[in-house]
Amino acid sequence: MQHPPSSPKVEALLVVGSLAFDDLEMPSGTFENVLGGAATYSSLAASLIGAHVRLVGVVGTDFDEAHLERLRKRGCDTLGVERAEGKTFRWRGRYAADLMSRTTLDTQLNVFADFRPKIPAAYKSSPYVLLGNIHPTLQVSVLDQVEKPKLVAADTMNFWIHGEPKALAEMLKRIDLLIINDEEARDLSGIHNLVKAAQDIKKRGPTKLIIKRGEHGALLFDDAGVSFVPAYPLEDVRDPTGAGDSFAGGLMGYIARYGIESPHALRRAMYFASALGSFCVEDIGPARLAAITKGDLARRIDAFAQMVDHGAKLSFVD
Amino acid sequence: MQHPPSSPKVEALLVVGSLAFDDLEMPSGTFENVLGGAATYSSLAASLIGAHVRLVGVVGTDFDEAHLERLRKRGCDTLGVERAEGKTFRWRGRYAADLMSRTTLDTQLNVFADFRPKIPAAYKSSPYVLLGNIHPTLQVSVLDQVEKPKLVAADTMNFWIHGEPKALAEMLKRIDLLIINDEEARDLSGIHNLVKAAQDIKKRGPTKLIIKRGEHGALLFDDAGVSFVPAYPLEDVRDPTGAGDSFAGGLMGYIARYGIESPHALRRAMYFASALGSFCVEDIGPARLAAITKGDLARRIDAFAQMVDHGAKLSFVD
Repeated sequence: MQHPPSSPKVEALLVVGSLAFDDLEMPSGTFENVLGGAATYSSLAASLIGAHVRLVGVVGTDFDEAHLERLRKRGCDTLGVERAEGKTFRWRGRYAADLMSRTTLDTQLNVFADFRPKIPAAYKSSPYVLLGNIHPTLQVSVLDQVEKPKLVAADTMNFWIHGEPKALAEMLKRIDLLIINDEEARDLSGIHNLVKAAQDIKKRGPTKLIIKRGEHGALLFDDAGVSFVPAYPLEDVRDPTGAGDSFAGGLMGYIARYGIESPHALRRAMYFASALGSFCVEDIGPARLAAITKGDLARRIDAFAQMVDHGAKLSFVD
Repeated sequence: MQHPPSSPKVEALLVVGSLAFDDLEMPSGTFENVLGGAATYSSLAASLIGAHVRLVGVVGTDFDEAHLERLRKRGCDTLGVERAEGKTFRWRGRYAADLMSRTTLDTQLNVFADFRPKIPAAYKSSPYVLLGNIHPTLQVSVLDQVEKPKLVAADTMNFWIHGEPKALAEMLKRIDLLIINDEEARDLSGIHNLVKAAQDIKKRGPTKLIIKRGEHGALLFDDAGVSFVPAYPLEDVRDPTGAGDSFAGGLMGYIARYGIESPHALRRAMYFASALGSFCVEDIGPARLAAITKGDLARRIDAFAQMVDHGAKLSFVD
């Protein structure tokens, strides 16, 4: 099998989710009006790999067009970004000294409160779809508007798991891949052991499940079995905001760029996902993700490849 | 590179450490007089891979010879196990419901209090040495008794890090590979970030460092870079006692069995280490480790190989 394919057919990735401004109280200082939102991080990650990103979201009148222009320069189509009267979604949070936990200090939904994703006609045939963490009913409404995508991935959170279990159950039946963290997997299934939790969740709809574990990497559960990708070991972590969204964007960006011809493709995509997540946390907000080049990505993927290389077939024959 | 080599030269692994009886208060019940001790777990793990284990430790008059006979049947040489007047080392602990933490309820050093490792003449040329978690001065005394081993690995714990920093510093200068957990690495270096902590620890002597992270796998830091092995995802974990010692025994058992001709060998050894650790936790005490066959090990290594297989070279060429 060749990688990357000699003439890859790049296909479009539809990304639906939030664009926001974050106020981040970090141990290293307070940073206000930082560009944020799941769709922002996912689009930056996916476009770096070379995916054709089609972005759907909503911003307020205070959202500088330059932010969208930068996304367009990266190859993101922003036709689906609606500009509504009012202010852009804003979140303020404070991180603990070790960056391992954070507290939400303020959430102002603003124009995001009335967000009803409208998929432009030009986006409807997108073969790959990434549904960011929005109300599960809105996630389903996106799928009602698109034509038979090859792979639909979705994120969700405890707020919907506990508050909208019925809508969430409907959403799970409509997607192929759920990407959540370990705490969410335990909450959703009610099972502490992650292997058993994954079996339970896969019965609810998605044939594929990725459980993210932050600095401990991520597990993929699909019909080919269980697979694992480590987190890239970093010397300096500045801001974990958006790491999970960068992971999801990197994953789906790889799939859109190189296809999903075999279970191995998803396994390789996991490394690109983890690489993009690792870049994200190296600076405040999406600064590092926006600054890195394809060369930086190639070098990190090489470092990952070396990190997991054991030089020969792994086997035990006595 | 071939693996395993077509005619591997099995070399001896000297294992020095505790043999004990454990009383285990588990969520699943209380289990008393369970065979324990770091050297027991390490020897069981290493011998399953086919290493020639040479065991040095001390037991009391209450230690049933049948335990040693079982080790001998696995290919462990027990000439170095001293039988002293008095009772065998005993530890009693209680595990939390999720098995993630434990409390020591009682420690009776008994004959282990006066343990001064005496290396039999027949053991002195052992090319590989695994020093279990004993006083660092005793670890050094073992190295004073052996002839130029090819690789010396050692474990330690917070008790020595805080209580015997000078003796520990001397020990670190004498070994090649330190195998500790993340909390110990942070305590020893005084640095929270594990990449930086590893750099600090490697300056103190060992050219190789493995940081174990329990259910999150383990990291290897050596001159070839950073490498990672996941923990095998298990559906049922019954007892974590001895998992770290099984990991160390599996690692050094692989090295003794197949040699350490390249950095890749240590990377493959990490998978055998993780596999043996995963078997260990599947039953109370060393029961599972003692019961598994080489076929069981081969199957778990195959499952591991599948788990980390991404089907092609990992690279990004845009």
